[in-house]
Amino acid sequence: MSAIHGANELPVSAPQERGDAARNRLLLLDAARMLIAERGADAVSMDDIAAAAGVGKGTLFRRFGSRAGLMMVLLDEDERAIQQAFLFGPAPLGPEAPPLQRLLAFGRERLRFVQTHRDLLLDANRDPDSRYSAPFAVMHTHIRVLLQAAGSTGDLDAQADALLALLDADYVSRQLLERGRSLDTLGDAWDSVARKLCGT
Amino acid sequence: MSAIHGANELPVSAPQERGDAARNRLLLLDAARMLIAERGADAVSMDDIAAAAGVGKGTLFRRFGSRAGLMMVLLDEDERAIQQAFLFGPAPLGPEAPPLQRLLAFGRERLRFVQTHRDLLLDANRDPDSRYSAPFAVMHTHIRVLLQAAGSTGDLDAQADALLALLDADYVSRQLLERGRSLDTLGDAWDSVARKLCGT
Repeated sequence: MSAIHGANELPVSAPQERGDAARNRLLLLDAARMLIAERGADAVSMDDIAAAAGVGKGTLFRRFGSRAGLMMVLLDEDERAIQQAFLFGPAPLGPEAPPLQRLLAFGRERLRFVQTHRDLLLDANRDPDSRYSAPFAVMHTHIRVLLQAAGSTGDLDAQADALLALLDADYVSRQLLERGRSLDTLGDAWDSVARKLCGT
Repeated sequence: MSAIHGANELPVSAPQERGDAARNRLLLLDAARMLIAERGADAVSMDDIAAAAGVGKGTLFRRFGSRAGLMMVLLDEDERAIQQAFLFGPAPLGPEAPPLQRLLAFGRERLRFVQTHRDLLLDANRDPDSRYSAPFAVMHTHIRVLLQAAGSTGDLDAQADALLALLDADYVSRQLLERGRSLDTLGDAWDSVARKLCGT
């Protein structure tokens, strides 16, 4: 996923125009988030989003290019927020907690993230390039570092890949919808495998 | 993947006709296998297969419906052969070997299978129904049973899922082609995670 530049990094334009653009961007993203949370991504059209934000549809397309473009921005912003939380946030996700506790908290937090962003992540999974994009690499490194700090030995890359597979959107979605499992039991399962790999 | 009926289960027809149909089926499958092994599935056309088998293209389509149909039959037959080997074959894959040894042998055998059938398995992965079809369920159960017999405790389903992820065609393909890893190092990685889960 490419970096999304903030409104203040746009090319030269009058201050007022930049302010409007930034405000419209936030209005549109908030409206999209709210509608998706209410109805699921599939049931939300660009018309709905423009109307809910009180912004013209032309502005919506100028700002995000396409529906897919808007969805990528939403996912990208939330991926950044979760990264911020597990790299720099408070315990138990962040660096003040002991490594095994952080690892277990990361699994449960990511499962919640996958449930919330299921539709967008499933779309992203259809394309190997976006499936294995920057967030995937950051999560792999994070898990690998925590495994090592928690005292795991052996092939830590393979262990991180195996653990990450339990947080994959297709896998989680199938467990929730077809196997009737809950987010809590999937969290317990991640917990069990992670503890096993750390030898506790 | 649906069960493929042998030629002798075809509807009523003259014995000679049945014999010809069975012979043509084998000729066509052998020719397809040989050409795919030589050139990769993408470079093999239905014309090539009919010509190599010395059989008319009409017969080829009558027998398998479509190129996709033929590919499914090839994969299905090879899936059955590998299942036969790990369920009932000789050690180290089969039941005469101790469970951990069988588990380690299974990982390496499946990695070879994935490399050989990469194109067909990657195609199958694009469709969640064929991704999680019968062979996937059989492998999951096999790994789960071996983990238990080898003394693993905890959530064995999650452990089996995590191990299976390391044998997934997309994952293996990416490790081989983009990460420059070899089948041997992937086998060592599987080995390391499997041993870890069994506590050895």
